[in-house]
Amino acid sequence: MLSLDDVRRAATRIAPYLPPTPLRRSFAVGTPTFLKLECWQPTGSFKVRGAINHLLALDARDAERGIIAASAGNHALGVAYAAQALGGRVQATLVVPESAPRAKVEKLRTFPVTVVESGANYDDAYAESVRIATRTGQRYVHAYDDALTAAGQGTAALEILDSLPEVGAFLVPVGGGGLISAMAVAAKALRPDVRIVAVQPEVSPCLRASLQQGKALHEFPTGDSLADGIAGGIGDIVYEHRALLDDVVEVSEAAIEDAIVALLASDQVVAEASGAVGVAALRSGRWTPRDERPVVAVVTGANIDARVLARILPPRV
Amino acid sequence: MLSLDDVRRAATRIAPYLPPTPLRRSFAVGTPTFLKLECWQPTGSFKVRGAINHLLALDARDAERGIIAASAGNHALGVAYAAQALGGRVQATLVVPESAPRAKVEKLRTFPVTVVESGANYDDAYAESVRIATRTGQRYVHAYDDALTAAGQGTAALEILDSLPEVGAFLVPVGGGGLISAMAVAAKALRPDVRIVAVQPEVSPCLRASLQQGKALHEFPTGDSLADGIAGGIGDIVYEHRALLDDVVEVSEAAIEDAIVALLASDQVVAEASGAVGVAALRSGRWTPRDERPVVAVVTGANIDARVLARILPPRV
Repeated sequence: MLSLDDVRRAATRIAPYLPPTPLRRSFAVGTPTFLKLECWQPTGSFKVRGAINHLLALDARDAERGIIAASAGNHALGVAYAAQALGGRVQATLVVPESAPRAKVEKLRTFPVTVVESGANYDDAYAESVRIATRTGQRYVHAYDDALTAAGQGTAALEILDSLPEVGAFLVPVGGGGLISAMAVAAKALRPDVRIVAVQPEVSPCLRASLQQGKALHEFPTGDSLADGIAGGIGDIVYEHRALLDDVVEVSEAAIEDAIVALLASDQVVAEASGAVGVAALRSGRWTPRDERPVVAVVTGANIDARVLARILPPRV
Repeated sequence: MLSLDDVRRAATRIAPYLPPTPLRRSFAVGTPTFLKLECWQPTGSFKVRGAINHLLALDARDAERGIIAASAGNHALGVAYAAQALGGRVQATLVVPESAPRAKVEKLRTFPVTVVESGANYDDAYAESVRIATRTGQRYVHAYDDALTAAGQGTAALEILDSLPEVGAFLVPVGGGGLISAMAVAAKALRPDVRIVAVQPEVSPCLRASLQQGKALHEFPTGDSLADGIAGGIGDIVYEHRALLDDVVEVSEAAIEDAIVALLASDQVVAEASGAVGVAALRSGRWTPRDERPVVAVVTGANIDARVLARILPPRV
């Protein structure tokens, strides 16, 4: 289990590298809702918090051997940014599947990291990264099922509590679940009356199913979702911290599209589908506050394909 | 003429209210270009810097009488935000023309300010605000032709020089010209080798015409431009500081549309047309760097109508 101290130590570590992200009143949802704009992190997602914390916490031997991670997306960008921010003290290898969008791979290559393209999909890339790590002794940096990664991600909660002490609830997108676990640990330790609301796509209600079946479902059959970044299985970490979650809600694909467009049109915020599910829960009425206190929707990422925006925007404005 | 000290005093004044905006590497333009993201200010534009500086610098009598401004857009939002940030110490009246977009007026009404809707267009609203000011003794806060407003806006230059000392050029959109004047004053005082590049829409080359005719053209016949926020006449302030400007370039409407889409698609940044002209100058080749030093395009605002995005995005991605 994570502790408040884990998250506080992470906050101290990452502070010189990442200024707090803005917490902004939302016109898309209306008062009293605020957006925690993790989509405005330098890599376009909250993942960079965890990556920087992890790399800064490495012991001398691990730092010297370097680290490795498999990812086609926001975690890879987070690790790459962290490696650059540390000025070459830690060599990073990123294994990306051949299915990764070219634009993301090209972006990754602008960082001082080794990019290995291997495997048809994420699972293959992951298997390859484990093979490399076994050979080289590099430490694997997991995107969510890792105490250091998650503790770094959870620092977002400390920033919210600091600037909006009267907050009543956090709405947090759940993929692997590292973010919500560490945010819940920090929030419940400091302010047990803050409700923690987990949000997933309706076509991939893995957290609800895991709670019902009494175990973390690492793999989960999912329908097509715009929010592919949070569809599929959850990690052990969120199952282990399940007692800290107050509500679990799911949102429809239509609600996700509506939220993306509302964030763009009313708040001038670019959100990827996975990052917009909290706003979707509020705008669709799937979750409503129990009292008058303001709520915070964590907008976890910005990295949406512009072709998706071009498709969903015109009919909705 | 403004001085570096004016801008430095403004920076000290506004620091408790506005954290520095990010300076981010641009994937839309390619290295070595950085974006100064004024579009991520809490009001969606740089204007809030000038408004906060102006309100904080009022003497006791002006502060007690309150201030007034006419605007349908970013300046009004800046003044409203400033009045709120000062916690009611200064009462603000905003005169908005009946032509102002409803969404902007509704946004304004969420702030603790008096909103007066009067006049068919901006000129009528301005005339009404002068009548009210004469009657009430309220001080008029001009959007650009004002030393306090402009000095506040110019603080963006200090932030850039602080985080990117090797910068070679600033590309700055020019409407009234307060922003570029104060940025140029600060930059040339500290780093005379930084090139200051003024950018306007091709259909409204008022700065070039003013320089040719030897006087500030306050009114200027303009063709239709997406960048209506910077089309039309310039202020005296930029004419008075003309010796500090190195280059004046104009960009086509097609280049502006291309820049808006590229910022959205490659950098996940929502920019209004007036705010995208610096990126348009770079992407269209209308301006190219003289050396290897990185350049900074100031993205001045985010407040674009989503219907414009819905129109220009699909054919370009």
